[in-house]
Amino acid sequence: MGIKIVTIGGGSSYTPELVEGIIKRYDELPVKELWLVDIEAGKEKLAIVGNLAKRMVKKAGIPMTIHLTLNRREALIGADFVTTQMRVGLLDARAIDERIPLKHNVIGQETNGPGGLFKGLRTIPVILDIAKDMEELCPNAWLINFTNPAGMVTEAVLRYSNIQKVVGLCNVPIGMRMGVAKLLDTTPDRVHIDFAGLNHMVFGLNVYVDGDKVTDKVIANLCDPSSGITMKNIVDLGWEKEFIKALGVLPCPYHRYYYQTETMLEEEKKAATTVGTRAEVVKKLEQDLFELYKDPELAIKPPQLEKRGGAYYSDAACNLINSIYNDKKDIQPVNVRNNGAIASIPDDSAVEVNCIITKEGPLPISVGDLPVSVRGLVQQIKSFERVAAEAAVTGDYHKGLLAMTINPLVPSDRKAKMIYDEMLEAHKEHLPQFFRE
Amino acid sequence: MGIKIVTIGGGSSYTPELVEGIIKRYDELPVKELWLVDIEAGKEKLAIVGNLAKRMVKKAGIPMTIHLTLNRREALIGADFVTTQMRVGLLDARAIDERIPLKHNVIGQETNGPGGLFKGLRTIPVILDIAKDMEELCPNAWLINFTNPAGMVTEAVLRYSNIQKVVGLCNVPIGMRMGVAKLLDTTPDRVHIDFAGLNHMVFGLNVYVDGDKVTDKVIANLCDPSSGITMKNIVDLGWEKEFIKALGVLPCPYHRYYYQTETMLEEEKKAATTVGTRAEVVKKLEQDLFELYKDPELAIKPPQLEKRGGAYYSDAACNLINSIYNDKKDIQPVNVRNNGAIASIPDDSAVEVNCIITKEGPLPISVGDLPVSVRGLVQQIKSFERVAAEAAVTGDYHKGLLAMTINPLVPSDRKAKMIYDEMLEAHKEHLPQFFRE
Amino acid sequence: MGIKIVTIGGGSSYTPELVEGIIKRYDELPVKELWLVDIEAGKEKLAIVGNLAKRMVKKAGIPMTIHLTLNRREALIGADFVTTQMRVGLLDARAIDERIPLKHNVIGQETNGPGGLFKGLRTIPVILDIAKDMEELCPNAWLINFTNPAGMVTEAVLRYSNIQKVVGLCNVPIGMRMGVAKLLDTTPDRVHIDFAGLNHMVFGLNVYVDGDKVTDKVIANLCDPSSGITMKNIVDLGWEKEFIKALGVLPCPYHRYYYQTETMLEEEKKAATTVGTRAEVVKKLEQDLFELYKDPELAIKPPQLEKRGGAYYSDAACNLINSIYNDKKDIQPVNVRNNGAIASIPDDSAVEVNCIITKEGPLPISVGDLPVSVRGLVQQIKSFERVAAEAAVTGDYHKGLLAMTINPLVPSDRKAKMIYDEMLEAHKEHLPQFFRE
Amino acid sequence: MGIKIVTIGGGSSYTPELVEGIIKRYDELPVKELWLVDIEAGKEKLAIVGNLAKRMVKKAGIPMTIHLTLNRREALIGADFVTTQMRVGLLDARAIDERIPLKHNVIGQETNGPGGLFKGLRTIPVILDIAKDMEELCPNAWLINFTNPAGMVTEAVLRYSNIQKVVGLCNVPIGMRMGVAKLLDTTPDRVHIDFAGLNHMVFGLNVYVDGDKVTDKVIANLCDPSSGITMKNIVDLGWEKEFIKALGVLPCPYHRYYYQTETMLEEEKKAATTVGTRAEVVKKLEQDLFELYKDPELAIKPPQLEKRGGAYYSDAACNLINSIYNDKKDIQPVNVRNNGAIASIPDDSAVEVNCIITKEGPLPISVGDLPVSVRGLVQQIKSFERVAAEAAVTGDYHKGLLAMTINPLVPSDRKAKMIYDEMLEAHKEHLPQFFRE
Repeated sequence: MGIKIVTIGGGSSYTPELVEGIIKRYDELPVKELWLVDIEAGKEKLAIVGNLAKRMVKKAGIPMTIHLTLNRREALIGADFVTTQMRVGLLDARAIDERIPLKHNVIGQETNGPGGLFKGLRTIPVILDIAKDMEELCPNAWLINFTNPAGMVTEAVLRYSNIQKVVGLCNVPIGMRMGVAKLLDTTPDRVHIDFAGLNHMVFGLNVYVDGDKVTDKVIANLCDPSSGITMKNIVDLGWEKEFIKALGVLPCPYHRYYYQTETMLEEEKKAATTVGTRAEVVKKLEQDLFELYKDPELAIKPPQLEKRGGAYYSDAACNLINSIYNDKKDIQPVNVRNNGAIASIPDDSAVEVNCIITKEGPLPISVGDLPVSVRGLVQQIKSFERVAAEAAVTGDYHKGLLAMTINPLVPSDRKAKMIYDEMLEAHKEHLPQFFRE
Repeated sequence: MGIKIVTIGGGSSYTPELVEGIIKRYDELPVKELWLVDIEAGKEKLAIVGNLAKRMVKKAGIPMTIHLTLNRREALIGADFVTTQMRVGLLDARAIDERIPLKHNVIGQETNGPGGLFKGLRTIPVILDIAKDMEELCPNAWLINFTNPAGMVTEAVLRYSNIQKVVGLCNVPIGMRMGVAKLLDTTPDRVHIDFAGLNHMVFGLNVYVDGDKVTDKVIANLCDPSSGITMKNIVDLGWEKEFIKALGVLPCPYHRYYYQTETMLEEEKKAATTVGTRAEVVKKLEQDLFELYKDPELAIKPPQLEKRGGAYYSDAACNLINSIYNDKKDIQPVNVRNNGAIASIPDDSAVEVNCIITKEGPLPISVGDLPVSVRGLVQQIKSFERVAAEAAVTGDYHKGLLAMTINPLVPSDRKAKMIYDEMLEAHKEHLPQFFRE
Repeated sequence: MGIKIVTIGGGSSYTPELVEGIIKRYDELPVKELWLVDIEAGKEKLAIVGNLAKRMVKKAGIPMTIHLTLNRREALIGADFVTTQMRVGLLDARAIDERIPLKHNVIGQETNGPGGLFKGLRTIPVILDIAKDMEELCPNAWLINFTNPAGMVTEAVLRYSNIQKVVGLCNVPIGMRMGVAKLLDTTPDRVHIDFAGLNHMVFGLNVYVDGDKVTDKVIANLCDPSSGITMKNIVDLGWEKEFIKALGVLPCPYHRYYYQTETMLEEEKKAATTVGTRAEVVKKLEQDLFELYKDPELAIKPPQLEKRGGAYYSDAACNLINSIYNDKKDIQPVNVRNNGAIASIPDDSAVEVNCIITKEGPLPISVGDLPVSVRGLVQQIKSFERVAAEAAVTGDYHKGLLAMTINPLVPSDRKAKMIYDEMLEAHKEHLPQFFRE
Repeated sequence: MGIKIVTIGGGSSYTPELVEGIIKRYDELPVKELWLVDIEAGKEKLAIVGNLAKRMVKKAGIPMTIHLTLNRREALIGADFVTTQMRVGLLDARAIDERIPLKHNVIGQETNGPGGLFKGLRTIPVILDIAKDMEELCPNAWLINFTNPAGMVTEAVLRYSNIQKVVGLCNVPIGMRMGVAKLLDTTPDRVHIDFAGLNHMVFGLNVYVDGDKVTDKVIANLCDPSSGITMKNIVDLGWEKEFIKALGVLPCPYHRYYYQTETMLEEEKKAATTVGTRAEVVKKLEQDLFELYKDPELAIKPPQLEKRGGAYYSDAACNLINSIYNDKKDIQPVNVRNNGAIASIPDDSAVEVNCIITKEGPLPISVGDLPVSVRGLVQQIKSFERVAAEAAVTGDYHKGLLAMTINPLVPSDRKAKMIYDEMLEAHKEHLPQFFRE
């Protein structure tokens, strides 16, 4: 038979990693068709990436066909897995998400604060459209979402679509695992972390090497900026040593926005006036990557791709697909319906937590409750995500404003309204639900 | 028989309100003895206030005796109700709580942020000492606490003492009720509010006049700074109209610190360089009050007392004591063990919620869950309060630092440590638990 | 304006109590119209009772009109309160509910075991029809249900209708309160009981006289069959003294079916061969009552009515309506959405628990959790009620069989099927949902 | 280094299976010492079994030493794993547990009903003693309990000891898995079952072959007594076909006592008057086994052992120990602290549920909630277990009586007291906690 995978946003610069991931697992994960879907605006990139993908497959000598299309519905028919990696409004929209808040002295970031809210408002309706198509065209397929903000998107799919076979994926946990391995001078496969929390708000409750707890040792070494536990897109300022010791669990890189708000804001402002915001930096990186991809001699994933922030995302997706397909019952940290795994999060909300990956999907491992010290922040972000998802679906002006104001990175109701109104206007084209008569 | 009430911090300027409250309820609440207890440093004030109290009682012609003492244990023997209204470190400590954070560009406030944390660290051990004495000397007495931060103190007594008969009391709900009455041009007794949340973090989920819902009407009128729903000690900047509409519930005045952080900080900084911080203002008010109290002709509560921020506190206490004593089964908003009333707060944590007041104590009315939009903030403050209470009890340096850093008003881990270390040193005298060998 | 009350099953023998209850509260509860609705089969009884009601009103001299009708929809228009007190299939159906199980050596009872299940299966669709009519014709009205099995019916309305303004009412708590008063030789108004559990499965967690706990004293006296805490329709065999002491809470009379199953079965079998089952006894009582009601000189509720098992039901209904109408905020034990009041029952299930009665309906008082010892049985009955309600709504053969088999009074899967099939056939006429093509 | 295992009740007839299990896993589970501990009364059996164990080890040629001792404390020093498989009062006590209830027309069974209660009352204090010794002598060891009633024992250790490293083990899930394999004509390793519930009250919520759901197919075939899903010690009467279909999940063999109470009782009574109760049958089987074990030529586990009800118990224990030791992270159904895995069971209660087995112990996989239809019965048994455990620890007469009366297999409060008093007297010797002055 063979597996059919459909990748929405197939023209993304990450696609070569996905193709590589499929190729190297071919023996146990026999993908017969890979459909790369994009929109008119991404046509050119799709062609470039698609051709590279074809060369990669040819070189690997596996019987998988690559299909390039702008017709999403055609692609979805009979799919087994649908992965999404698109960016509504492209990098220009992301730059707006970063610049407008900064102008108001507020963190401007892709998945956190005002930027995260607006990325959600733009993305969720598109994902729900895809879910609706899937319901009709490939009702048994799994939706593997790695479009950000992945937590909010998973929450929205769980609450507002008829699709329950959805998994949100992130490269943060993998990055933390690799960082810990580097820190302890060991290999990632020997490291295990008890992940629990939300997307980009996940904690490592305990860290193990070969099954033995090394949490305290890792925490003691975490404050060194050279620890390795960071992300390409996040400035690493190190942590206040005594605070991390007091916290007692491993934060993720995005926690800097919450525990170091002021300092991160200063760094962002500095960058914005020098190298540019992250979107602006990435835009340049992307151009370089696509130049590389055009090379007709290139038939592998170029090593330069790993410098991009999203490294390991696609590999994580392949791993997940493989474990579902083969009922591996291994442990992977993914975004799923909580189902009681974390006590103080509602059962029907999305959480990021270690799961057993089975043919029927991920089953979360019970965490009990998060430590009291981190529980409040996690719950606050979950409140924000739920209000934001509702705003995205309804296009209700007040729900959106509410989400903006209760976000912990936004310092006052008045400023919230100012930023909100300005961003709403700036993103008007991609927010039709807010501008219906 | 008659009732014995013991008031710890009896030399407080609020005492005349308490005495007035007892006198006017004498028919149904026959208090036989009122013991006013204070410490050596408050000796003089105790004498002034105590004499005024005696004159008030004499004028009222009721058979109640007033006892003034510095010996707390003697006073507690056989008490029926113990009220606490003390201030560890007096107003000077409060001024430190306000000034140090402000210096670091952080809200400096009595019960919120760094100031609230340190007030808790100083107060909780003293309250737990009182609880221990009560266990021995008046095991059946009720502890009616209106010492701030009342939520954190109630949490600490519930978790770390053997006393379960404790109620935390606050004048914020009464103030909101009176404000709504003023706003709607009606009388407070016709207004009912569904209160739920935490101390100084309480929301009015619905507002009624004569049992009919008027929530939307109240919210629509709330944004006017002259609405009347504010506190003496909180600058009223009005609310962003669309945000309040979006929120859909009635915030309390202290919510300004969280939803208008930046603006409140600016106001505080301005005040600090002009009229002085709130402690400094109050210090002057208190001196004036005590001058008044000295007047041997004065035999009533002087009307000037109502200008003080804590108005209605003592009246609320009398009301509560009366309802317990007489098993009134009326509804009052107080701080008690949650016991499932608010779904997403642990059962064994303190909440501020409408309760039926019975002879066996307050029984919370089930709220279900708070609206998603406010749930996160409430949970974050609850996390903070629990970590703070643990720090107060253990004197653990890291727990205190953790509480400081996770407080939503503190903008970074580094600044948290700076403020924490500075305040710890400044309050050294009143924080022996942190300086044990 | 005046209040409009509609009573479905208006031809019931209980109606005079309802009319009396309205008359005596007229000053604060100005009912302008009372509509008594019945079906064709109850036409004659409706006329008899309706005429008595008119005589009662006339004698009382209040300006309330009595309307008799077989047209339910006409009656419902603009109603403020709708009370339901009907019996689908009349007493003949109840006799079947009692006789068939008994034949198989299983408890045959109106609201428990197989009989309770079938009464629910017959009644729920009719109540849901009424709810649908109310949604259309009197959307603001309260549905005050005292049709049995009241817990299952309330559960069904909450889950399967669009009406949320529903309260289930029972006379068991009133009976327990009066029984305790008699036991302690005091008056019912001085007695307060903390009620919690389910309908006909409610416990008195604590008992108070004038606010003081007397639980142990009551329990110590409970084992005497002459204690007075029983129901007209339940044989009182006394309790095993040491068991009641061990239980530590006040059971309700219906608990005998669960804690004394074997003995109750023997008593039922004996009665069935001598005086007849309860339905058969009641049939005779009813005939006598209606003979009395016919007397054109009678213009009051005849005292003989109190001998009927349902005494106080209608008075409880009037009390409830009065407290809702006048926003009394008093405490009454009723069946409502749990909303977290009892920890181990789902929030959205019906429970019987002390509530504050407000204009917006009853607000449950938080119980925390039931004692471990009774929690299991309560949960088992709740499971049964939920499966039964689902069966009633869907007409699914297997769901009904499942409900029958998991009922704790049914001793085996095979016997369950036998009784179920036999009762399904016997009640065919009143169970159209199970016999659709 | 090597592992040290201590087996309390080492003289049990099951020990050869344990020894075999260790031998065959030696490569990955290098056990250096196996200590078989027993009491004076089991001295002779210990010698017989111990010698067989030594011959088995010798034949296998592995460097493991077998130690036989009556000194438990000496054995525990430095243990890594402690397994318990004892029977307080031996088979004679079990026969009493079976005979007395039967005399009163009540199910007499080892782990259910009155028998289960008394086995718990006798066993729990001994297990808690062992836990106390472990705390002192081998604080890092795991207690692997397969002494029945394993659920109640695990509950008691979790609540009343300082040992948290405890896992309760049962062969029921393995038996169900093997039965399903047989039913579907496949091998057990291809079958996976989602187990959830309590010990001897566990359900298979879903059944998979190679990751694909086959639940409905299994259920459809379950009603055939030859299905293979039963236990040696439980009469298999088949299930009522329509009931099982309605139930929709796989019951365990012990569920027959609850869903077929009446029929099982009849079977038990018949057996008691012919072949004898299960204890009496087993006694004979044991004698035969020990005769076999004496054979100095025997150096393997004799195949006859598999006819004994507890087959696979010891193999399950070896599997569990192996997975803990090697941090295998495989899935095994065991009894552990719920920790939120099953929504309606308290977090701190023991449940039997699929877990990931890690070096730090089993981590339960989140189940969400049990189907409504089975939830009530499970909760009722959990209530019973908790009251029983409290009775076992306190020796409180009334708690024990309460446990007996609320057990769903006991038909009335009076009969409960009769059986309870009679069993208390009969087991006096092994229940010192109930007979203290």
